[in-house]
Amino acid sequence: MIISILGHGVVGKGVWEMLQGNPLYTVRNVLVKKGEKTADFMTESFETVLNDDSELVIECMGGIDPAYAFTSKCLEAGKSLISSNKALVAAHGIDLLEIARRKNLSFIFSAACGGAIPILQNLCRARKTDTIEHAGGILNGTTNFILDSMDRLGLGFDEALAKAKALGYAEADPTADISGMDTMRKIMLISMVAYDVLPNSDYDIEGIQSVSAADFSAADKLGCTIRLVGNCGLSESGRLYAYVQPVLCSRGSLLAGIRSNVNLAMYHGKNAGDMSFMGQGAGRYPTASAILRDVSSVTDGQKQLLGEKCLVGFACNDAKECTKKFFVRTSSSTFASLSEKIAIEKVLFEEDGKKWAVTRPLTVSEMHRQVSDARRRGLEVFFAELQEEQA
Amino acid sequence: MIISILGHGVVGKGVWEMLQGNPLYTVRNVLVKKGEKTADFMTESFETVLNDDSELVIECMGGIDPAYAFTSKCLEAGKSLISSNKALVAAHGIDLLEIARRKNLSFIFSAACGGAIPILQNLCRARKTDTIEHAGGILNGTTNFILDSMDRLGLGFDEALAKAKALGYAEADPTADISGMDTMRKIMLISMVAYDVLPNSDYDIEGIQSVSAADFSAADKLGCTIRLVGNCGLSESGRLYAYVQPVLCSRGSLLAGIRSNVNLAMYHGKNAGDMSFMGQGAGRYPTASAILRDVSSVTDGQKQLLGEKCLVGFACNDAKECTKKFFVRTSSSTFASLSEKIAIEKVLFEEDGKKWAVTRPLTVSEMHRQVSDARRRGLEVFFAELQEEQA
Repeated sequence: MIISILGHGVVGKGVWEMLQGNPLYTVRNVLVKKGEKTADFMTESFETVLNDDSELVIECMGGIDPAYAFTSKCLEAGKSLISSNKALVAAHGIDLLEIARRKNLSFIFSAACGGAIPILQNLCRARKTDTIEHAGGILNGTTNFILDSMDRLGLGFDEALAKAKALGYAEADPTADISGMDTMRKIMLISMVAYDVLPNSDYDIEGIQSVSAADFSAADKLGCTIRLVGNCGLSESGRLYAYVQPVLCSRGSLLAGIRSNVNLAMYHGKNAGDMSFMGQGAGRYPTASAILRDVSSVTDGQKQLLGEKCLVGFACNDAKECTKKFFVRTSSSTFASLSEKIAIEKVLFEEDGKKWAVTRPLTVSEMHRQVSDARRRGLEVFFAELQEEQA
Repeated sequence: MIISILGHGVVGKGVWEMLQGNPLYTVRNVLVKKGEKTADFMTESFETVLNDDSELVIECMGGIDPAYAFTSKCLEAGKSLISSNKALVAAHGIDLLEIARRKNLSFIFSAACGGAIPILQNLCRARKTDTIEHAGGILNGTTNFILDSMDRLGLGFDEALAKAKALGYAEADPTADISGMDTMRKIMLISMVAYDVLPNSDYDIEGIQSVSAADFSAADKLGCTIRLVGNCGLSESGRLYAYVQPVLCSRGSLLAGIRSNVNLAMYHGKNAGDMSFMGQGAGRYPTASAILRDVSSVTDGQKQLLGEKCLVGFACNDAKECTKKFFVRTSSSTFASLSEKIAIEKVLFEEDGKKWAVTRPLTVSEMHRQVSDARRRGLEVFFAELQEEQA
C-alpha cells in the first residue's frame, strides 16, 4: 500500500520511521513545513501529496487549519484517511466521515484518543454486541503528570507545570490541557464511537487551574488524591451526558494508581462489566504505534470507527446518574457566600483562612453553574467530585 | 448467520441469552447433557448439531474430551469455531487451527483468556505492527480473590478458599486454579498469539498452595502484598520464556490494585510501551460478552488470532530477563538447609519459628528447581518474586 504523511513533527516522524523497512507499505511523500525539507521523500507542497499515487494519507499535523482543508481534499481525491488529530476530529469528524462514506474510503482516528491505548477500536468492537453504559477516564497525560507531581512531590501548581514543561510533558501553551478542553475533545470522540453522538455543546468542563498544594494536603488527610477525569454515558432516560472535572479518589483506587503521564480509559459494558485500559496517552512511538495499528486495520478493510448514523448535538446534565457529592474549598471569609448557593453537608477542615467541605448531592451541571457564578462574584473556589466507594 | 452452541452451562446459557433478539443471528441447536433437554432448541445429540445448517459453532463445554472430538468434527464439516475453552485450546489449538486453515474457516478463542478482557484480540492486532517484548498478568480470578481476601480480611488460606467457594469464585475442585496451571494455560494462549509459539513444556509454575497468613503479615511489614502472576516474553537472545509464580508487590503498584476476582492482562510493546487491560476474567455475562465480540469478528470475516505459522515447543528459562530476586520463607530450623542452596542476600524477619529472607538474583528456573529439591527434602517453603521498583 502506498502511503503519504501530512506532518513530520513528533508523531509524523515516528510514523515515518516505523513504516521504514515494512515490506507491505511504501511512503510516497511526507508534507513538511516551509523551509523544513531536508530529504527527497519530503515535500513542502500539499498539491504534491494530493496528486500522488498514495491510497492512504496519515494526518499528523495537528490543528484545524489547514488540516481540515487538506484531509477533506485527500478524501475527495479518493485517498483513505487516518488522523491522530483530536481537534480536527472533534470539530469536523462527521464531515470527514460523510465524504469517506460517499467515496467508500476508510477514515479512522484511533490515535486521536488515548495515544497507544486502543480504547476507540475496542469500543467500536464492544458496542456491536454490548451496551456501553458509560465511558471515560484520565485522558490527558499533562494534567495527570501535574497532579501526580503535586501529590507525590508536594509541588505547587506552577512548579509542577514548570516541571512538566521541562520534561516535554506540557506544551509552551498548556491551556487546552489544564483547562480540561483536551480531555473533553477525547470524550467527544469516545461518545461518537460509543453512542453515535458528538456532544458539541452543553457539556461541563472544570480543569485543574484552581487546584493548590493545600488542596492536596486536605485530600491526603482523607486518604485521597486528586485526578482529572472525563465522563460520558447514557442516563436512565436514555439521554447522553458528558463532563470533565477533578475527582477526589481514595489511595488504593484505580484512579489514584495512575501515575505520571499515564492515561486510563474505561468503559462499563452491560454484559462485560467494568473494562479499563492503561498505557501511554502521548509521545512519538506510543502514538505512532496506534496509527500503525490503524494502517493495519485499513489494510484489513476497516472503513470506520463510527456507527451508521452519527449525530451532532446532545443534551442532558440533569440526568440522575450525574448527581454527585463534591469536595469544595473556598476562603473562610467567602464560605458563607458559597454555602448560601450550594448546600453543604459537612465542613471538613479550616486552615490558613481556607475551608474545605463536602456538599450534599447535586447535579454536575448545577455544581458547575454555581461555581461559575461564585467566581463571577470574585470567590476563589476549587472543587472535585467525590468518588463513590468501590468494592 | 446460523449458530449452534455446544454446552448450556454458565457461559453457554449466557451466550444463548445474548443472541436472543439479535436480528443478525439465529441459534439452531444447543447441545445439552443427557437428561437436561428442557426446551425445543436443545438437543442431547451431537450428531444433530453436526448435521444441522449452522455455519458457526460456539463451544462452551469445557474439558478436552469430548470437546476436542466435537470441535474438530464441526470444523471438518465446514462450520467455523469459537471456543472459550482454554484447556482445549492449550492442548489442541494448533490441530484445530490446521483444520480451520485447510477448510478456510474461522477459529477464534478470545474468551479462553481473560474473560471479558480483549487481550488476545489486542495482541493479535498489536503484533502486526509492534514487537511484543513481554506479556502476562493476573489471569486467574479465583487465586486473586483468595490472595486479596487473605490480605484485606486477614484470612488464612483455607478460610479464604472456603469463602471463594461459597461465593462461586472457586470450583469444587480448585486444583487447576491454585496450582497456577489455569494461569499457565492462559499464558500459553497469549504466547501463541503474541509469538506463534506454544510453550508446552519446560515452563515453571508455582501456585499459591504454600502461602500463609504469616506471609501476608511479613509482606505487609514491607509495604507489600502478594499476587499470582503469569509471564511470557522474548529473552535478549530471542528465545521465549514462560512461567507463573507469586509476586511480592508494593501497595500502590498496579498489581496490588487488582482486587477481588478482577483480572489484569498486560503487554509491553516496543513502540506502544506498557499496555494494561483490566476487567472481569470470568462469569457468565463477561465471558459471553467476549464470545459475542468474537461472533461479530467472524461476521466481519476474521479467520484467526494466530500468526501464519504457530509452532509447538519452546525452550529457555535461563534467559537474562528471567533473573530475579525472591522473597522466601521457611522454618528457622530448616533455614540453613535452604540457604546452602539458594544464596541469601538478607534475612528480613524471624517470628514464630519462621524466617523470611531476600535471595540474591537468580534465574526463575534455578529458583523453582531449588525449591522443588528443598520440598523433596521435607522443607516447607513459600517464595515470591520481588517486583522491581516502578517509577
